[in-house]
Amino acid sequence: MKNRIVAVGSVAKDSIETPFGKVENTVGGSSVYFSLAASFFAPVAVIGVIGGDFPAGFLKKLSKRKIDVSGIEKAEGKTFLWKGRYSWDLNTAETLDTQLNVFQNFSPKIPAPLLSSKFLFLANIDPVLQMKVLNRMRKNNGCFVAGDTMNYWIENRRKALERIIPKLDALMINEMEIREFTSQYNVIKAAKSILSKGVKIVVVKKGEYGVSCFTKAGMFFLPAFPLEDAVDPTGAGDSFAGGFMGYIAKTGSVAWQSIRKAVAYGTVMSSFTVSGFGVKRLLSLRPQELKKRYGDFVKMVHFEKFKL
Amino acid sequence: MKNRIVAVGSVAKDSIETPFGKVENTVGGSSVYFSLAASFFAPVAVIGVIGGDFPAGFLKKLSKRKIDVSGIEKAEGKTFLWKGRYSWDLNTAETLDTQLNVFQNFSPKIPAPLLSSKFLFLANIDPVLQMKVLNRMRKNNGCFVAGDTMNYWIENRRKALERIIPKLDALMINEMEIREFTSQYNVIKAAKSILSKGVKIVVVKKGEYGVSCFTKAGMFFLPAFPLEDAVDPTGAGDSFAGGFMGYIAKTGSVAWQSIRKAVAYGTVMSSFTVSGFGVKRLLSLRPQELKKRYGDFVKMVHFEKFKL
Repeated sequence: MKNRIVAVGSVAKDSIETPFGKVENTVGGSSVYFSLAASFFAPVAVIGVIGGDFPAGFLKKLSKRKIDVSGIEKAEGKTFLWKGRYSWDLNTAETLDTQLNVFQNFSPKIPAPLLSSKFLFLANIDPVLQMKVLNRMRKNNGCFVAGDTMNYWIENRRKALERIIPKLDALMINEMEIREFTSQYNVIKAAKSILSKGVKIVVVKKGEYGVSCFTKAGMFFLPAFPLEDAVDPTGAGDSFAGGFMGYIAKTGSVAWQSIRKAVAYGTVMSSFTVSGFGVKRLLSLRPQELKKRYGDFVKMVHFEKFKL
Repeated sequence: MKNRIVAVGSVAKDSIETPFGKVENTVGGSSVYFSLAASFFAPVAVIGVIGGDFPAGFLKKLSKRKIDVSGIEKAEGKTFLWKGRYSWDLNTAETLDTQLNVFQNFSPKIPAPLLSSKFLFLANIDPVLQMKVLNRMRKNNGCFVAGDTMNYWIENRRKALERIIPKLDALMINEMEIREFTSQYNVIKAAKSILSKGVKIVVVKKGEYGVSCFTKAGMFFLPAFPLEDAVDPTGAGDSFAGGFMGYIAKTGSVAWQSIRKAVAYGTVMSSFTVSGFGVKRLLSLRPQELKKRYGDFVKMVHFEKFKL
């Protein structure tokens, strides 16, 4: 399993309300969205924690997808809970409730057989924990590491974030968050300042306005895949990361052309997530649908013959 | 001059303030931005009105670009004046002052030699005037007509707008405006409802987030050209329209592939406008710079081999 990805992040029970409906106590969490998305491209192993209330059947659903759940530990207490609401502008969530529960004392442990994995995704968790995992993995190998973060950590764990970000190969971050982290309104300048710290790929997520990708080789931009039936953006960013990293793991290449396609696959993947509540659409997604939409997307954004 | 474009719109004196500086009493107006942009592709004739205070030298600058100014009438009084301010979010202007002046009683007259022109751009003016011009031009020929509008007309001239929009070949409109006009939040659904009225091309402008283009043949999306030095968005929409329509007039084609390239040229053209205050950058722009940036742009948004 040369191309296996280890993903560390939350496994959650979510309650979500949008103008298009609502859902209660559905399985979510960054590492769940990520691993479902990435599993279309490469084997994935999830590191996380669940409580006694977590629906056992769901882990079986992940296993069926060849997602390794040996790193999901069961702790006493309740699963991490998130409750949020979106208004018509589906770009930003209003958090109504967060209960850390078993996540409070979560200390990620990586099962020994996974330590040799060449790809690591650090979902949006405390940067102190991200660093712990990164150090543990890098000790053994020169794995490719991508990481996500959020405004909460920028505001409450800035020092730790400033330590881990330069160690990442790829940073996935929202438009407002990169502005906040760098104190730079212009996103190109903000991304360049992150690249100058040694990060190789900076991916700036802009919700329905798509994504910007910055490397030393150049800049790359894609709109979101257009949706008439967007109903719930929860997990869109993690699904993007899953498609992105999945494609990179599958090809084993971080050449500029490979990164560009990875951004496109991430974009297409997240569009499916947004078409259903929670992970519903990701669970029903078939590889042929993914392939078809990727092909449709090419025709929606290209206008010239292309040779890099 | 088979491919000449007639543009009807405002010629103005603008005072503009942004976080990056300010400029007072500079020449602006929708038909000025449009014609400067379009002149890189095709001959343009401007229909408009100026007052006694208008700098005579500026008309010569337009003429030097082979822009026909025979349709710009001089009236007694002052030129149309606009004063506006942008904050860090350069996407929306706050109007501080508008003085219609000679524009108040403007009734567009098209010089006889221009009546056979095959391309007509109706910039953002009263839809009643737009209709008058459209009828006059269509009486003589089957010209291709593109039109722009704004929230003011949606709110104050809805009936007239509802009459003219179905007669347009191409509608250029902002994201918030198409939502407002159609009472439909989802932009794809909103655009489809405009297409169903008989409009062939709907272009939805999203400022720094780029543009979406809808036709019966399909959808097409582009991000904006990335700028580190965006200073003043005034005229970006009209410059987009100029590049877009200029390319269509130049090629004489409204095939889907031609429309897509037109959207790309419009995008690149508007990026130059935004790099300077007022029309400054458009005036200094050279064809080689345009060609270079178009080529750069292709590499920023393509990721696959492409065949429509």
